[in-house]
Amino acid sequence: MPVQLNRYDNSWYKTGRSAFVRMLWLLTSSLFVQCNWHPVSFLRVLLLRLFGAKIGKGVMIKPGVQVKYPWLLTVGNYTWIGEHVWIDNLTKVEIGNHVCISQGAYLLTGNHDYKKTTFDLMVKGIVLEDGVWIGAKGIVCPGIRCCSHSVLAAGSVATKDLSAYMIYSGNPAMPLKERVMEKA
Amino acid sequence: MPVQLNRYDNSWYKTGRSAFVRMLWLLTSSLFVQCNWHPVSFLRVLLLRLFGAKIGKGVMIKPGVQVKYPWLLTVGNYTWIGEHVWIDNLTKVEIGNHVCISQGAYLLTGNHDYKKTTFDLMVKGIVLEDGVWIGAKGIVCPGIRCCSHSVLAAGSVATKDLSAYMIYSGNPAMPLKERVMEKA
Amino acid sequence: MPVQLNRYDNSWYKTGRSAFVRMLWLLTSSLFVQCNWHPVSFLRVLLLRLFGAKIGKGVMIKPGVQVKYPWLLTVGNYTWIGEHVWIDNLTKVEIGNHVCISQGAYLLTGNHDYKKTTFDLMVKGIVLEDGVWIGAKGIVCPGIRCCSHSVLAAGSVATKDLSAYMIYSGNPAMPLKERVMEKA
Repeated sequence: MPVQLNRYDNSWYKTGRSAFVRMLWLLTSSLFVQCNWHPVSFLRVLLLRLFGAKIGKGVMIKPGVQVKYPWLLTVGNYTWIGEHVWIDNLTKVEIGNHVCISQGAYLLTGNHDYKKTTFDLMVKGIVLEDGVWIGAKGIVCPGIRCCSHSVLAAGSVATKDLSAYMIYSGNPAMPLKERVMEKA
Repeated sequence: MPVQLNRYDNSWYKTGRSAFVRMLWLLTSSLFVQCNWHPVSFLRVLLLRLFGAKIGKGVMIKPGVQVKYPWLLTVGNYTWIGEHVWIDNLTKVEIGNHVCISQGAYLLTGNHDYKKTTFDLMVKGIVLEDGVWIGAKGIVCPGIRCCSHSVLAAGSVATKDLSAYMIYSGNPAMPLKERVMEKA
Repeated sequence: MPVQLNRYDNSWYKTGRSAFVRMLWLLTSSLFVQCNWHPVSFLRVLLLRLFGAKIGKGVMIKPGVQVKYPWLLTVGNYTWIGEHVWIDNLTKVEIGNHVCISQGAYLLTGNHDYKKTTFDLMVKGIVLEDGVWIGAKGIVCPGIRCCSHSVLAAGSVATKDLSAYMIYSGNPAMPLKERVMEKA
């Protein structure tokens, strides 16, 4: 049975906002958030909050950051979101405290049931717990939980949950070694 | 013998359009196609067709899509081209019906003869047959044919042809399992 | 001991230019360098030089190229920097003669000491020697030297130095075969 994308039906999926608000966000993001012409983190945080994102204190958001739906994003305190990070949150993405998402990283929440001729949409959230580090150009797949202080190396692809205080690398990412913290 | 890029000669290579048309396309694409400020798929399809792309019915093209030369692009019916997909078609790229190219995927058609001091350009087209799914941030290398209903997993790199109804993942992508379709 | 990004201190790190110059560069880059709307390599070279980059003759810089700090960039003669190449140079990046950095490649110079609760910044330069080819969407990690005429395949991640006249591929990149040059 071949795929028939004309029979695709995602009418059950709700973004949580009207088409008008989504277009307004797209325009706002394009001009002031995803843009590269200004470095003002505070403005990005402000606009994301205005569109419903829950963002803690001391959060730094760099130029080029793209967020699909701010109202589905939660960010804790003292977290960094680097240049050109793409949070493609069709559903909830929860980012904890003291998390570093390095430049060019990508969080993916959408999938399709490739066995179905209707190619049904499947969305699964992502959780990045406290102290997690997603390396530059890292990719986190749908439904993944990166447990406390886990690390995904630059350019790696997380296809399974990352265990606490473990470092992963490669495509798909495999455990490399433990993250042993020094005493302060 | 060292490489000497000052001796590079791609005068044999023809884009198929004048420098003026190419500049006009670059500007048009920058403002209305590759841009992120509007979500109107129809406008993107219209402009690509205006510059010579053959695009079927029911095709969806998302914001951020970059096409090198529209006049070298063929897209069938009911195909989806996701956000920030980059179709870098120095030569013909043929995309079939009911194909899904997910967000951030990259189709590469240019290569160089690295054995030559003149680093000669080599271009090879790409074919994505009906029902193919290129996962998010996937990369398809020059000359690759993705046969009917093959799947490239998110973040994977296709360096060889993909067999029909097979799922590939990794860098380089290796066959993972068969894509068994359910009866409708 | 958990990570505490509020205790992060990079006051020792100097960009080498005032905040005003950095903002001016960000704006200039956004409008005329990193932008996609014009193909004029000469303008990009000119602006990079104006902000302190040392760039040789016959250098080609394509649309979408992003350079963090031009004053920390050195490029030799007859080198190509492809579309959407991202030179994220927090410290010196030295690119030799006749180097090809293909489209979408990424040079990373920043790292963090993940064992420290203060997540200290660590910067390490990158050197691309003469005749090197970084393939499309390739990633070069901090501190890496790509020796003369080494090649990184498309989509690969260089985590160690690349030996002269050797071809590497994969994530992490492993030596594949020798680059045997033909006589001219």
